[in-house]
Amino acid sequence: MDELQYQNWKNARAQRKAFLASEDLFQELIKGDVAALASAITLVESKNPTDQEVAQALIQKCIPYAGKSLRVGITGVPGVGKSSFLESFGQIVVQQGKKLAILAIDPSSSHTGGSILGDKTRMEQLSILPNVFIRPSPSGEHLGGVARKTRESILLCEAAGFDLICIETVGVGQSETLVHSMVDFFLLLMLSGAGDELQGIKRGIMEMADALVITKADGENIQKAKVAAQSYKNAMHLFPPKSNQWIPLVTTCSALNGYHLNEVWEIILRFERHCSMNGSFDQNRKNQDKYWFNEWLKELILADFYQNTSFIHQLKESEKMVLEGKVTPFEAAKMIYQIYKKQA
Amino acid sequence: MDELQYQNWKNARAQRKAFLASEDLFQELIKGDVAALASAITLVESKNPTDQEVAQALIQKCIPYAGKSLRVGITGVPGVGKSSFLESFGQIVVQQGKKLAILAIDPSSSHTGGSILGDKTRMEQLSILPNVFIRPSPSGEHLGGVARKTRESILLCEAAGFDLICIETVGVGQSETLVHSMVDFFLLLMLSGAGDELQGIKRGIMEMADALVITKADGENIQKAKVAAQSYKNAMHLFPPKSNQWIPLVTTCSALNGYHLNEVWEIILRFERHCSMNGSFDQNRKNQDKYWFNEWLKELILADFYQNTSFIHQLKESEKMVLEGKVTPFEAAKMIYQIYKKQA
Repeated sequence: MDELQYQNWKNARAQRKAFLASEDLFQELIKGDVAALASAITLVESKNPTDQEVAQALIQKCIPYAGKSLRVGITGVPGVGKSSFLESFGQIVVQQGKKLAILAIDPSSSHTGGSILGDKTRMEQLSILPNVFIRPSPSGEHLGGVARKTRESILLCEAAGFDLICIETVGVGQSETLVHSMVDFFLLLMLSGAGDELQGIKRGIMEMADALVITKADGENIQKAKVAAQSYKNAMHLFPPKSNQWIPLVTTCSALNGYHLNEVWEIILRFERHCSMNGSFDQNRKNQDKYWFNEWLKELILADFYQNTSFIHQLKESEKMVLEGKVTPFEAAKMIYQIYKKQA
Repeated sequence: MDELQYQNWKNARAQRKAFLASEDLFQELIKGDVAALASAITLVESKNPTDQEVAQALIQKCIPYAGKSLRVGITGVPGVGKSSFLESFGQIVVQQGKKLAILAIDPSSSHTGGSILGDKTRMEQLSILPNVFIRPSPSGEHLGGVARKTRESILLCEAAGFDLICIETVGVGQSETLVHSMVDFFLLLMLSGAGDELQGIKRGIMEMADALVITKADGENIQKAKVAAQSYKNAMHLFPPKSNQWIPLVTTCSALNGYHLNEVWEIILRFERHCSMNGSFDQNRKNQDKYWFNEWLKELILADFYQNTSFIHQLKESEKMVLEGKVTPFEAAKMIYQIYKKQA
């Protein structure tokens, strides 16, 4: 047996072991066992290579059972009340027979090592209900890692029978765009009141929203929320139409007294019908799959270069020369690339 | 002399020859000679390797003389009147002592092999003025190529003493984002009237604009244009603030009778003062240089992979498997990457 044959044999053996190890978990998971689901996501999040083998084998088994949920992304600036909204909104959809999974996403959480959802008391009443699964975000990860783990966790939740998956962004950063690229419906929560509160919303996010909901429309705040909603409604008309022909809706709600939470759910269901009818629902998922395939391929190829520590010094030097205006960005890039090719 | 020494000697000799060949052109160019500038840009656009050597040597010499212009991007849907606007607006700024260069950018023009500016009669009166340089877009190029050539042409125009460079987008596509990443000020021209006209404007473009100008505000159209401007003004308040603290302005104008063209120029000058005062002008240029350095480096590295034709079949196969839901995008990307690594 030569080296190549040995490697192939070793790989095949590892895959076989992973396949067997994943079998029990898989059987529990597709029955809807929440403990099995939690263990499965832990495997997905693990950095251990053996765990990763098992996780991938498990996901491969889950694929035929996945894809049948509605995936909803929920975002908004800190303080807009995302957790309160989910706590109240979640109870309504569960009452209507949905199995709800909430996943948090937070590529910027390395500083705390946790996330808002880590503090489950924030969704006290929701988290104890049957048919509800809440999972804090994987912490201390870069954007690509979070994306992969979240997408794989969605598949696992779906295989476990959850039919409404909410992806909540925690913190501000690139997470909104990331979430948008993995959900069917994108919900933007906003505060009423003038400009100041917008500081945290990144440019371009508003145009991604499928619905814009003004939160905290209760007590003295109701009128202010209505005025804000009307402004946003007017603005929405100025945006170019989406390719799925959906016109984003604007409304107000209150997590405190449940005002309009049913309406938000109605909007989401209406969106699902609209997009299923014109075929854009499946098309969007296909586009997302294609996008992620290409993104990951690029990431793997570029990682080869960027993880090569012998370039770090030269990269910094070249960037400095570019910023000092000594050389054009294109020439600097070409220089670095030529050094790289000589080494390879 | 071994192979490596020979290669080094050959490279050094080619660089020396290019340096000498570029010297005469350089001397004419920095005197502001328009014919020299046109020849220089032709070198930049040439696919001939020797021309490219000369072009890069020339650009390297021009760098110390470049960077002192105001770079303005102008975009809008076909029919909005970009050429008419530039024809009238250009005459005003030239009267005020500016040296104006207009470059067109059109990554999607491969079908015609030309561009609007190729038909110079579109700017009949402007093009015959002294201190005006108009250059059609390089045709039949991919996005990265257009970006590099346009950025290099900007440097050449600046070295030739042009202090206002307008980059006009031709056609619709990714060109707006491209232009935005290489100018100081981004001007969006729009038609008055409801939603329909927006079809051509891509999502996210409105939020990039530093000023939004409703064109054709003349005759019976004046009132309609004013109403449109007011709607956009209201909408602009809802957008999150830009990092340079500039609040995008909205106005109307007419290329036909010159109405408000001076105001548009005032807005641009006000923007320049605003951003110079708070340091964001230079910061933005540095960010753009850094962005392009990283973009081109990535492009060079990825080209290695994507130009390897032996993968095309496998790439298509994997993408198909992803779209049919047989494998996750991440697993598919990993498979392709492993084949690539084995070959390398």
